[in-house]
Amino acid sequence: MKGKLKIAVDAMGGDQGPSVVVEGVVEVIPRLNQGEELVLVGDSERLKREIGVFSTNFLPISLVHASQVIQMDESPITALRKKKNTSIAVALSLHRQGRVDAVVSAGNTGAVMASSVWTLKRLEGVDRPAIASFFPTEKEPIIVLDVGANADCKPLNLYQFAVMGSIYARSILGRRNPRVGLLSIGEESSKGNELTLEAHRLLGRSSLNFIGNLEGKDILTGDVDVVVCDGFVGNVILKFTESIERILTTHFNKHLRSNLRSKLGALLLKPVFENFRKDFDYAEYGGAPLLGIDGVSIICHGKSSPKAISNAILVARRMVKEGINEMIKQRLKENGIGKRGNG
Amino acid sequence: MKGKLKIAVDAMGGDQGPSVVVEGVVEVIPRLNQGEELVLVGDSERLKREIGVFSTNFLPISLVHASQVIQMDESPITALRKKKNTSIAVALSLHRQGRVDAVVSAGNTGAVMASSVWTLKRLEGVDRPAIASFFPTEKEPIIVLDVGANADCKPLNLYQFAVMGSIYARSILGRRNPRVGLLSIGEESSKGNELTLEAHRLLGRSSLNFIGNLEGKDILTGDVDVVVCDGFVGNVILKFTESIERILTTHFNKHLRSNLRSKLGALLLKPVFENFRKDFDYAEYGGAPLLGIDGVSIICHGKSSPKAISNAILVARRMVKEGINEMIKQRLKENGIGKRGNG
Repeated sequence: MKGKLKIAVDAMGGDQGPSVVVEGVVEVIPRLNQGEELVLVGDSERLKREIGVFSTNFLPISLVHASQVIQMDESPITALRKKKNTSIAVALSLHRQGRVDAVVSAGNTGAVMASSVWTLKRLEGVDRPAIASFFPTEKEPIIVLDVGANADCKPLNLYQFAVMGSIYARSILGRRNPRVGLLSIGEESSKGNELTLEAHRLLGRSSLNFIGNLEGKDILTGDVDVVVCDGFVGNVILKFTESIERILTTHFNKHLRSNLRSKLGALLLKPVFENFRKDFDYAEYGGAPLLGIDGVSIICHGKSSPKAISNAILVARRMVKEGINEMIKQRLKENGIGKRGNG
Repeated sequence: MKGKLKIAVDAMGGDQGPSVVVEGVVEVIPRLNQGEELVLVGDSERLKREIGVFSTNFLPISLVHASQVIQMDESPITALRKKKNTSIAVALSLHRQGRVDAVVSAGNTGAVMASSVWTLKRLEGVDRPAIASFFPTEKEPIIVLDVGANADCKPLNLYQFAVMGSIYARSILGRRNPRVGLLSIGEESSKGNELTLEAHRLLGRSSLNFIGNLEGKDILTGDVDVVVCDGFVGNVILKFTESIERILTTHFNKHLRSNLRSKLGALLLKPVFENFRKDFDYAEYGGAPLLGIDGVSIICHGKSSPKAISNAILVARRMVKEGINEMIKQRLKENGIGKRGNG
């Protein structure tokens, strides 16, 4: 644990541009400790104007200029090849040079992911980094991984996701002995596809608190802390969930307008609806860490609110302070699955 | 199209036993045409008692005895091996013998699926049958397939699912030129896993109305008629969706009890909530056909309501009358993908 902890924030990422990110940065400052500092990376002229609003002369914020921006709809690969001085590239290079301890970005997910792996490299013992996303449930939030870094996975990848997710759930979500479930299509160990059948065997032999297969209906119960799946299924589920809030709103709006009784009821229930929307609004959560890289990189939703940005900064700080990567390396070394072939 | 159309109904399937199934059968009778008949298969003593309630002497219902039942939680494979005289086996064997034109069952999904394929065999040109499920959307209901018959798929399987789904959507949902989407993790054709990347190429070369990749968030928009995916992803999504109604109820109940304002609002909005629950209650829909077998077999949800059973019977009738299987065979022959390798 260093005395001086620095987090770089990609100020140009996100659908709404720097103003939301800067607002999130300013919001989080009262919660920082002595010696902790945020480094805003982006168009410095623009950022000076944005920060001016908050008159931040005395705030622990510094600026680092980056002349380019990766658009949200730009191809990550093309962007990484052609643009060398983007806000995300500069932030990650500060991290690689040891000038910051973590990076937070609400930019183009594919680009943040690819350039994080490219710049920071994989963590020792990890074959494929994974994106871990919070999911709201009937009880406490849980994490699901991978939600998009790896469209095709091998059983060993899923095992490593489980290890990383378990450590993350313990350190960041505070679960003492995180329950790890494998997303499949039946509770019995004999149910699944080729990937999950073999992953089930690996997980069963590991020292993780593996509770077995889960079905789609079990994700939101809150009776598991870490849901492990390949990045294809995880991404489909994540994006499907994001659409639920929209379909609910559409449905209720249609019926609510139908008569006076419904209109009045809707007015009375407005706070409950708002609450529900917030619970299911992923932009409220503190971003998704890319686990398994040699550094800390948090990917926020493009439509992140200032609160989401500030939450992500706090998660990044905690990941650095808890030394999550050291724990992951250690745990993978101890279990040694894939190297010595035992659990 | 035969003059005398007969549909066998597995009367012993479903979580609640024969009474619900019999109620569904009796409900649908006024909608049958002259010469159409339902064959109830199950414990004949029990069924006579159940039917007695409705005094059905003049109804177009006949009974066929089956001495055994497959339990909902029984292993399909074991059940099929050990029990030769179950209601579902007898119903399917009537179908194979040409004594009925279709089978409807709310029994153990795995068992209905496996014994349907086993008894009726695959349709000419189809490598793997698939279960097609209705999904409610913001607009009209759509179908998603496969939702569980095939945990591991090849690109050609997805292409065949698309052909079968498209024909089903046209004949049963009445869509003139069904839009077929491939479930993936990005809209661009370059996004996906190995399976979907190759399936995208096959679909792009076909004569289907292929609208490209869909993401998880696009399933419920109603801007597509047929969503194609492997049975693993489809099953996870289906079961995940089934759990949404439950999490909504839990959430609202928690908040609704909190104060008088919310209680009053909830009372006023009760019809809207009920409506929503119904929209998302898959048991309300008319079952899921197993497409790609040489016959018509509709798998209903274990907790099907009488209405769901009667809807399933109507869907079965329509599948027979429209000659869906003939169309599938014809279409697969015309396109010839997988045989001559062109679209």
